[in-house]
Amino acid sequence: MPLGDNLGDKSDSRYCGVETEFNDDMPHVLSHNINGGFDFVVAPLMEPGYRPSLIDNASKDSSVLPFAGSDLVLSPSQWSSHVVGKISSWIDLDAEDDTLREDSEIALKQELAWASHLSLQACLLPTPKGPSCGNYARCVNQILQNLNNMQLWLRIPLEKSEVDDDDAVNGVTDGMAIEITDSWELWNSFRVLCEHHSQLSVALDVLSSLPSANSLGRWIGEPVKAAILHTDSFLTNARGYPCLSKRHQNLLNSFFYYSIQIVLSGKPVHKLPATSGVNQTDNYAQQAQRHDLRSYLDYVGYLYQKMEPLPEQERFELGYRDFLQSPLQPLMDNLEAQTYETFEKDSVKYIQYQRAVSKALVDRVSDENASATTVVLMVVGAGRGPLVRASLQAAEETGRKLKVYAVEKNPNAVVTLHSLVKLEGWENNVTIISCDMRCWEAPEKADILVSELLGSFGDNELSPECLDGAQRFLKPDGISIPSSYTSFIQPVTTSKLYNDVKLHKDLLHFETAYVVKLHRLSKLSPSQSVFTFTHPNYSPNKSNQRYKKLRFEMPNDTGSTIIHGFAGYFDAILYKDVHLGIEPTTATPNMFSWFPIFFPLRSPIYVKAGAPLEFHIWRCCGNTKVWYEWCVTSPTSSPIHNSNGRSYWVGL
Amino acid sequence: MPLGDNLGDKSDSRYCGVETEFNDDMPHVLSHNINGGFDFVVAPLMEPGYRPSLIDNASKDSSVLPFAGSDLVLSPSQWSSHVVGKISSWIDLDAEDDTLREDSEIALKQELAWASHLSLQACLLPTPKGPSCGNYARCVNQILQNLNNMQLWLRIPLEKSEVDDDDAVNGVTDGMAIEITDSWELWNSFRVLCEHHSQLSVALDVLSSLPSANSLGRWIGEPVKAAILHTDSFLTNARGYPCLSKRHQNLLNSFFYYSIQIVLSGKPVHKLPATSGVNQTDNYAQQAQRHDLRSYLDYVGYLYQKMEPLPEQERFELGYRDFLQSPLQPLMDNLEAQTYETFEKDSVKYIQYQRAVSKALVDRVSDENASATTVVLMVVGAGRGPLVRASLQAAEETGRKLKVYAVEKNPNAVVTLHSLVKLEGWENNVTIISCDMRCWEAPEKADILVSELLGSFGDNELSPECLDGAQRFLKPDGISIPSSYTSFIQPVTTSKLYNDVKLHKDLLHFETAYVVKLHRLSKLSPSQSVFTFTHPNYSPNKSNQRYKKLRFEMPNDTGSTIIHGFAGYFDAILYKDVHLGIEPTTATPNMFSWFPIFFPLRSPIYVKAGAPLEFHIWRCCGNTKVWYEWCVTSPTSSPIHNSNGRSYWVGL
Repeated sequence: MPLGDNLGDKSDSRYCGVETEFNDDMPHVLSHNINGGFDFVVAPLMEPGYRPSLIDNASKDSSVLPFAGSDLVLSPSQWSSHVVGKISSWIDLDAEDDTLREDSEIALKQELAWASHLSLQACLLPTPKGPSCGNYARCVNQILQNLNNMQLWLRIPLEKSEVDDDDAVNGVTDGMAIEITDSWELWNSFRVLCEHHSQLSVALDVLSSLPSANSLGRWIGEPVKAAILHTDSFLTNARGYPCLSKRHQNLLNSFFYYSIQIVLSGKPVHKLPATSGVNQTDNYAQQAQRHDLRSYLDYVGYLYQKMEPLPEQERFELGYRDFLQSPLQPLMDNLEAQTYETFEKDSVKYIQYQRAVSKALVDRVSDENASATTVVLMVVGAGRGPLVRASLQAAEETGRKLKVYAVEKNPNAVVTLHSLVKLEGWENNVTIISCDMRCWEAPEKADILVSELLGSFGDNELSPECLDGAQRFLKPDGISIPSSYTSFIQPVTTSKLYNDVKLHKDLLHFETAYVVKLHRLSKLSPSQSVFTFTHPNYSPNKSNQRYKKLRFEMPNDTGSTIIHGFAGYFDAILYKDVHLGIEPTTATPNMFSWFPIFFPLRSPIYVKAGAPLEFHIWRCCGNTKVWYEWCVTSPTSSPIHNSNGRSYWVGL
Repeated sequence: MPLGDNLGDKSDSRYCGVETEFNDDMPHVLSHNINGGFDFVVAPLMEPGYRPSLIDNASKDSSVLPFAGSDLVLSPSQWSSHVVGKISSWIDLDAEDDTLREDSEIALKQELAWASHLSLQACLLPTPKGPSCGNYARCVNQILQNLNNMQLWLRIPLEKSEVDDDDAVNGVTDGMAIEITDSWELWNSFRVLCEHHSQLSVALDVLSSLPSANSLGRWIGEPVKAAILHTDSFLTNARGYPCLSKRHQNLLNSFFYYSIQIVLSGKPVHKLPATSGVNQTDNYAQQAQRHDLRSYLDYVGYLYQKMEPLPEQERFELGYRDFLQSPLQPLMDNLEAQTYETFEKDSVKYIQYQRAVSKALVDRVSDENASATTVVLMVVGAGRGPLVRASLQAAEETGRKLKVYAVEKNPNAVVTLHSLVKLEGWENNVTIISCDMRCWEAPEKADILVSELLGSFGDNELSPECLDGAQRFLKPDGISIPSSYTSFIQPVTTSKLYNDVKLHKDLLHFETAYVVKLHRLSKLSPSQSVFTFTHPNYSPNKSNQRYKKLRFEMPNDTGSTIIHGFAGYFDAILYKDVHLGIEPTTATPNMFSWFPIFFPLRSPIYVKAGAPLEFHIWRCCGNTKVWYEWCVTSPTSSPIHNSNGRSYWVGL
């Protein structure tokens, strides 16, 4: 019985599971818990006392392993929809004791083979017993190489010891190195050994005390599939019922938001008050059946249902979350009608443009000259006309007279443009030019040049090159809207995107920047500005090549992290105080024309707690193309990505 | 004029170069220095005052760049054999100053394009100006992507500041982190950014003071092509002539040994005594021509010529140096006659076997029983008979009576074995069995089982599996020769092998162990024992699976290093104190049957000074094959290599 329908999406976090003890009557385990309100069980498959080495040699070949029931006790769909296999927790593949280590390897392989035979969706692997997990990882990695679709959830406690800031900066206390316990390190080591396998994920054990918010934030970019919430972590409310601390509530909200399933675990520790006003004898049967973790489940359901519903914009974009798209090649390719359609719906964007044009018109022509002066405005890259409309509305709003040239290189868009002008009766005010702005010979010069050529990273769709070409027909004191734009970038953890890029198994995809609605990612440090372009640009030796070196510091309490790449954004000044952008801290609300850009790294880079991250990015210009190169030089160096634009470039 | 013929090989280090100033008369530069005794010049190609930004725009397109002469002033073979281009040393691609940085990029590209046009073999790139070299590396990397065969030698000073041991252990002095200058870090960062490109190498600037021996040792595994020796680094001997300190002499000897060319640099700083007894006026012309660095060159030549000549063994193996060979599959494949021929020539090995058999015979049969007792000895894997011969010689030497069974699975070797027995008249003592030892039904049991089934890593040619199969026909108190063997391993830097493996551009070759005569490598820590097998093995639950976790500590004064993989060896106890092996510190002298084994890493691992290296290796056994898996877990984790033997295995 799902927790609720709150989000309106099909998120996995609607389902709540429960961890159970071993019981060889699996049908009973399942019916008891499903009737008790849970959606699935996390149940041991094998009798916990079993050790391969205790079986005498004679019976080894023929003995039946002590599993919970045969595959026939449940239907295939029950096994796969309602049971997560819990691998025996005594297993310790890095034990010093040879017998225990060898028993562990045999048992792990037997249990996972059985789970796989049952087509379970997932198995929960026990937490590594010590800081060294080489042999455990080797064995799991071997299994992963030949596994069906089953997910392996490595159980990791959500814990990190905190040190105060001064210690962390120096890395020493009284001359001694600090031992920081950080379970993330264990996870990181394990998954690197297993080559970031996409079927290896995390189940977090949520404890009663939580690490800092920055430290928790790291996990969002990791493949966390489940969070195991122990009854010990609950507090008691005034009425004697279980509840959670505010920090735990926030954490659960974030799990719900990121589709992380909750699993309840442990024995009930709250004595519930007798239910008054209900005839207890009448409800005897019902009471007997009531699950003893029901009040915990009800509380989790309550939290789920009281979450803020997703804004419409977010719901609309659900399908795009973490989906990699290749950036547009607007110069080389012509956009399709559908693309124009989508962009034109972004009313917020055109309202900003209209505001910018209005302010420019008022600055350009005083009120007393308004009727005598006609401003020449050129829309370069007019598409199907939204900026023409915004400009004309600005003229109407300010009472200025406007002559518009709409320059567009896509002949298909020009067809629509012509019919728009006719439909709206703009024939006297608008001249349509079917030409590339870089080679058009304008009959007169413009007062205002309006364009919307920006990509997710500002200059990445070659706005600088296009506007440099167009400024020939701008008057010396003319205005460009936008007047400048700046790109921004920040380091992120995003296992999902890394694995999606890796699927292609080639260099090219690791050296390509993608447009993507970022969702399951950890932003590790505030974004920093990268490249700025200003228009018009009359400097004598102007070049659109750029180089920027950035140094990112992670907050001290974050702990160590892994960097899968960099999220990029832009902010544009349209005119004076009118801006437009997607940089998260200053983003224009409710604008949807741009998703962020993502620059991947070929190999994820481990950054030790407190170490700075040094990033370099170049904008390179050739005769026929423009491209970026990027690399990391600290804490360790990466190769330089996309040398000579060998993998990814934008054609001129 | 080469320094000499000492080594008997065609090593590059016979040639000595000289660094010159800019001179636009290149024919003069060349003839002066060649006549002066040098083999090549390292000469600037472009006038040092040239800056691209100083050329006015008008003349930019048509101006002739200030290069030293046209390509016609020397013949193509003179350019390519005798000139190394020296790139302008003012170039600073990581300068804060934009003009200098942009000038640097243009000039670097112009100079390298010119050098490439001249088909020079190499160019010397100036030392990066600061610790950050991101933009320099990006530019060089772009050039490397489209370069002809020319090598780029990055000039790096050979310097590392030393700290005393206690400081290095704690990493702190008075609570402050130590700033250690280590030019290797600069090189490492640069080459990682350039993806370990095989045309990017190092020219070391040898200074008057040298880092510690451990620190110098790191460079041997790096692609050092030249060492630039400044006249300042020379001392003065009793007669007023230049000479070098003992440590510098040792360094030069090591450069000669590893084919690193010497380049002399600087002005003469020794005033030589007037040559007495020579008619100075007669030799006026000769004196005038004498190169002013001639006495330095003569001293370098003297060091070259007085080196110990290479032992015959080493000369024989010159062609195998750093050449990757796939290990044998002796069970699946039959060896060829040529392979038997080579191995049988290794007399040292068979002398050791004869000594071991002799000792075993004497232990087995007392002198008084010698004539009454016949010892049954089985050679398992007899090949063409060398162990049969050694065993019979041991019997003769000790006066014991011997009955030999020679078991061999290769029918081709059995042909030769029969003719050997006939030729030697061994028919009464030797029975030849054409059969795989693992399935032979022996007519009687053996006192002694003799085998030579060891690979470079001991068990890697499946000696354990073969001898386990053969011990069925060994008497309960019987002896196996060898009685045990142990593998050893140590971490190494070896750019050469890494790049050779990388050439294949696939995962398979990075997950294969190679047999290789290791030469250009740095051994970073003493070898440690890995797996031991003892024969016969009567333990009830015997398994030939193994797992070993090793922790290597690098000497504190080494500095940071890069690990390309692990060099492996073995040592075998044939019988009691008679051993045989290739572990470097205990290797059997003059034995040539085994080269070391090399386990590569898919990505080289950077190990910071003082950090321990943790390595794991598994010997895994399946039904049809045996394989190794390996990984590093500290300082950072590598993926687990060769999971399930997917890339490299030995068939049973």
